[in-house]
Amino acid sequence: MKKVAMVLSGCGVFDGSEIHEAVIALLNLQMLGAQVCFFAPQGVAFDAVNHVDGAPEGKRDVLIESARIARGNISPLSAFDPQSFEAIVFVGGFGAAKNLCSFAFDGPECTVNKDVEVAIKGAIAAGKKLAFMCISPVIAARVISSGVKLTIGSDAKTAAAIEAMGAKHVDCPADSFVEDESFGVFSTPAYMLAKSTVEIDKGVGRMFAKMLSD
Amino acid sequence: MKKVAMVLSGCGVFDGSEIHEAVIALLNLQMLGAQVCFFAPQGVAFDAVNHVDGAPEGKRDVLIESARIARGNISPLSAFDPQSFEAIVFVGGFGAAKNLCSFAFDGPECTVNKDVEVAIKGAIAAGKKLAFMCISPVIAARVISSGVKLTIGSDAKTAAAIEAMGAKHVDCPADSFVEDESFGVFSTPAYMLAKSTVEIDKGVGRMFAKMLSD
Repeated sequence: MKKVAMVLSGCGVFDGSEIHEAVIALLNLQMLGAQVCFFAPQGVAFDAVNHVDGAPEGKRDVLIESARIARGNISPLSAFDPQSFEAIVFVGGFGAAKNLCSFAFDGPECTVNKDVEVAIKGAIAAGKKLAFMCISPVIAARVISSGVKLTIGSDAKTAAAIEAMGAKHVDCPADSFVEDESFGVFSTPAYMLAKSTVEIDKGVGRMFAKMLSD
Repeated sequence: MKKVAMVLSGCGVFDGSEIHEAVIALLNLQMLGAQVCFFAPQGVAFDAVNHVDGAPEGKRDVLIESARIARGNISPLSAFDPQSFEAIVFVGGFGAAKNLCSFAFDGPECTVNKDVEVAIKGAIAAGKKLAFMCISPVIAARVISSGVKLTIGSDAKTAAAIEAMGAKHVDCPADSFVEDESFGVFSTPAYMLAKSTVEIDKGVGRMFAKMLSD
């Protein structure tokens, strides 16, 4: 059975992992026969956001909130060993751009959480596959750079930021994906473009089918 | 386009709605062409549970946390008008048994949130379909009673509690569902039995295909 790591950044589109994307990714990976293990950075506090009115709700913890999506079965990202996995998947949501890196605040000058950077570099060094959904390709752009081909859909400003970080942006519809064969890096727009879960399901499904067939 | 109401009880299996069940239900309903509108009871505080270690985390609000699954688009359940919907769906998770009713504490002697009771009775009076996932059929048993056929899978103690409330329990595997034709009430075991999201997807998919074909 192929093992896939899924990296979460909280629980909720406005301050954590996009929940629909995480579950649809999980469903598609399990449909392909993969075993999914959840990870999140440990000891990272974030500003929780009321998802009804956008009001601040104080601090919550990335790993502890991510555990809601993982039903309690989650490990610190520092424990991720690329040798044990076929691939590592990053879910979207503002948590990817606020809690895993500082892109939401700093744009192309963003910094990346150390455990996230180590996990990505380790996976590439080990020749493993990487997949980035929604806004999370900005993390790949920052860490990998080197002209890696990525998509966040077609948002011009975010695409320009990705190119400013030294990566190559490719426009892509919600029901499809982009593959960078040299790095083994996959990306799909998900809610950067999708109007419903059906489009996310198509994009993610096609991406993982290719990713796990190699 | 058929409109379906989905009732949430928070965000996380141990104190709210089971996240995988909610998203897989949403995906299957959107695949069937339905428009899904989210609801949750307003003004209900619940005891939040740390999903890593089970420790108490203070009070959170059912509607506000449910909005994480709904991406902000959620209404108070008191605003639910059965005439505007084809069906109403209740998701599982401990929130269904702790926040929508008191089954987790009181068993067959449980009380049901007033807005939940009104929504269920209103949907039945209007001849609409109702669907209950995972543990949430206990709510249907308490509100409808009258020998309504329900399943929570095969857990003997919960099945006995359902019968004690005047309903009829039918054993059912995770990838299937039970229909009560006289009340228009559907139920599927989901994580009461499912070992993976794939089984939930099958049970929910089959249930909604039948529910929306009538």
